[in-house]
Amino acid sequence: MRDLLPEEARRRRALARRVLDHFALHGYQLVTPPAFELAEVLERGLGTLDPADVLRFVEPGSGEVAALRPDMTPQIARMVATRLGREPRPIRLCYEGTIVRRRQGRARRHRQMPQAGVELYGAVGLQGTPALAAQAGDLEVLGLAASVVASLGLSRAVLDLGHASIARSLLAPLPPVLAAEVSDALGQKDGARIARLLQGRDGAATIAALSDLHGGGPGEVSGEALLDRAAPLLAGTAAEGPLGELRALWSAARDELPAVLRLDLGEVRGFAYYTGAIFHILAPGPGEPIGAGGRYDDLLARFDAPMPAVGFALYLDSVAWAREAAGVIDEAPPSAVIAASSGDHEATQVTQVTRAVVAALRARGVAAVVQPAEGAAEYAAAWHFTHLVELVPAPDRATLRLTRRASGAVSEHTDAGALALAINS
Amino acid sequence: MRDLLPEEARRRRALARRVLDHFALHGYQLVTPPAFELAEVLERGLGTLDPADVLRFVEPGSGEVAALRPDMTPQIARMVATRLGREPRPIRLCYEGTIVRRRQGRARRHRQMPQAGVELYGAVGLQGTPALAAQAGDLEVLGLAASVVASLGLSRAVLDLGHASIARSLLAPLPPVLAAEVSDALGQKDGARIARLLQGRDGAATIAALSDLHGGGPGEVSGEALLDRAAPLLAGTAAEGPLGELRALWSAARDELPAVLRLDLGEVRGFAYYTGAIFHILAPGPGEPIGAGGRYDDLLARFDAPMPAVGFALYLDSVAWAREAAGVIDEAPPSAVIAASSGDHEATQVTQVTRAVVAALRARGVAAVVQPAEGAAEYAAAWHFTHLVELVPAPDRATLRLTRRASGAVSEHTDAGALALAINS
Repeated sequence: MRDLLPEEARRRRALARRVLDHFALHGYQLVTPPAFELAEVLERGLGTLDPADVLRFVEPGSGEVAALRPDMTPQIARMVATRLGREPRPIRLCYEGTIVRRRQGRARRHRQMPQAGVELYGAVGLQGTPALAAQAGDLEVLGLAASVVASLGLSRAVLDLGHASIARSLLAPLPPVLAAEVSDALGQKDGARIARLLQGRDGAATIAALSDLHGGGPGEVSGEALLDRAAPLLAGTAAEGPLGELRALWSAARDELPAVLRLDLGEVRGFAYYTGAIFHILAPGPGEPIGAGGRYDDLLARFDAPMPAVGFALYLDSVAWAREAAGVIDEAPPSAVIAASSGDHEATQVTQVTRAVVAALRARGVAAVVQPAEGAAEYAAAWHFTHLVELVPAPDRATLRLTRRASGAVSEHTDAGALALAINS
Repeated sequence: MRDLLPEEARRRRALARRVLDHFALHGYQLVTPPAFELAEVLERGLGTLDPADVLRFVEPGSGEVAALRPDMTPQIARMVATRLGREPRPIRLCYEGTIVRRRQGRARRHRQMPQAGVELYGAVGLQGTPALAAQAGDLEVLGLAASVVASLGLSRAVLDLGHASIARSLLAPLPPVLAAEVSDALGQKDGARIARLLQGRDGAATIAALSDLHGGGPGEVSGEALLDRAAPLLAGTAAEGPLGELRALWSAARDELPAVLRLDLGEVRGFAYYTGAIFHILAPGPGEPIGAGGRYDDLLARFDAPMPAVGFALYLDSVAWAREAAGVIDEAPPSAVIAASSGDHEATQVTQVTRAVVAALRARGVAAVVQPAEGAAEYAAAWHFTHLVELVPAPDRATLRLTRRASGAVSEHTDAGALALAINS
């Protein structure tokens, strides 16, 4: 449970604004589900949840069990099924909010994670078959993921593309506990551990090989070569069909998308609801994905409104970290502390001038506060104001002395309009 | 638990943006506390909470009891006490978030209420005594409340000003259950019920009279006359001091503030932490306050960082209702559906033109999506796009036919730049 103090809170809000504005520019419309949800709705979407994973409580008035969402997608699915299912398709929605997940590893406390994401339901292709329409939806969402991270200045971000059913279909015959261990080892690309875990079992070599089937980025083995290597391995297994889908998507995406796409056939992370393409967005800095998404064509059927669906979410804490690592920050808009001298004979005159200056600055979009002259510079520094304005009394009218804090540059002005112009320039 | 669908969610976000931008313009800096909080912190700020009033849960990892906040002020107080207490004063903070309260009346379910508010800690007056500094803080916050509702177009909003200690000090000698009943009757300005409840007790007439001491607005008895009427009633009671403070604030505020201020000496609503001036913000429409605030000089001491404090919160659901009642809405920014003809021989050409148009519009801040020509107009209508663009094929280059949906006006353009200009105009 973490507080965001002024500078960080401002930047975080600016980041969320950028992301939602970008989604809106691509026709994705904001919806806002409630901050908590009936546990039944979340479980319908996510499957039975480990009781230790979810924060639940009983709503005293109704006796219903509610939970703090570990994911917003089931809520949006419920909204679409109950209230938006009859609107023309595709349904393009975006959202922002906080989810609560249990931390991985030793410290098992829950953490609140701010997310912003999109959902594309019932994709409509311009031509042809449902498979082509689905591919068009995948491409739209992959393209949006690539463009939003580019718009955030993350020029080194990459999208790791896989398919939910490749590893899953190969692991399906294993006993659940073993499958979970192998899945964990796959997530860490630990082929030796997989081979050890599966020793003597059918298909052990194939599953172990998945951990090595990643690449396709700049300077890596090409995506086509990876897919060619995978084809004979997966031929005749349940993963053959999914591999074909992934190949079709890769070959379309290579033409459509900026060079940010990589392949990862052993991708296993993420919620169980994914049914098709899955991807993670990575960028230097946070050491964990800055976002993830994929296709979940069965989810809406659980809410009695079957339709194809694909989407992704950005993890805003990690995105903020990646932007910091990339040296990208949203600068604060201009703001000024007006130093008012106090207690002297001209207090009334000063107050009137000060007020007029403050009003003029605010009217021009410059944040402004009045502080006693003593300590005004310290106030401006501590609270990240960009400018300091001092009133220099004069017989006829006061002069306004402006200091730009970052550079120390000083200029003098005789009226508030000129002052505002200088601050905004 | 309520969902916000696209149009409402967009407007709500625009409203929150307006409010926070206004607060920022006045030097109030955003902080973001976590969405849930240790119950101990909330109770330290709010006093012992009725178990039925708060949604609590045990954090499985730590075993700690957390709660969904019924108020954000205790969280901000904790933040200030632990992390911002040494910064130069006054500390000006703002916030936005969802609180959870139990609904009044028969349906006792909890509801989630989005709020945005400000906190002014450790006010520093330009001259003089702590009392004058406190009054300057009260005036700053009252002025900000008046200006934010004015900036939202709520020209008929009023601020009902009272003092937390007037009614409280008169009710203090009563048994708690009776005091709660009288307080409820005072809230409903039901003097007859108060007289009945207090029959035969000392001070009954004085308390009953409070329910009638409100006015000071346009066309009402003047604030001065109300205060003059209250003075002999409260003389010699514990409410005499608070009445003096309220008179001083009223007389200063009358000079400083727009004509939106009224007096209400029987004001009792709100959290127990208020110690001085309290106010509610009212506007036609929602039938309940759109915001409330006041002074809480003892709160920070509970977090071991004693300092004066004053603030208020807007209840964004009610504010949105009041704006709707006043006919004020934030219009959607321009957006366009590009109708792409499908399946014909020129599909590739159309796709290239379409893509160029979409990219050009987005680059100029116009939200744009491509839809199959069949159903494109319905799509634009259902999803509130402001414009429809049709590509009219031509031998050399396609013409762009633009329809402004609100007016039905049609214009034709030969390039995307001119199209964007027409949409944005």
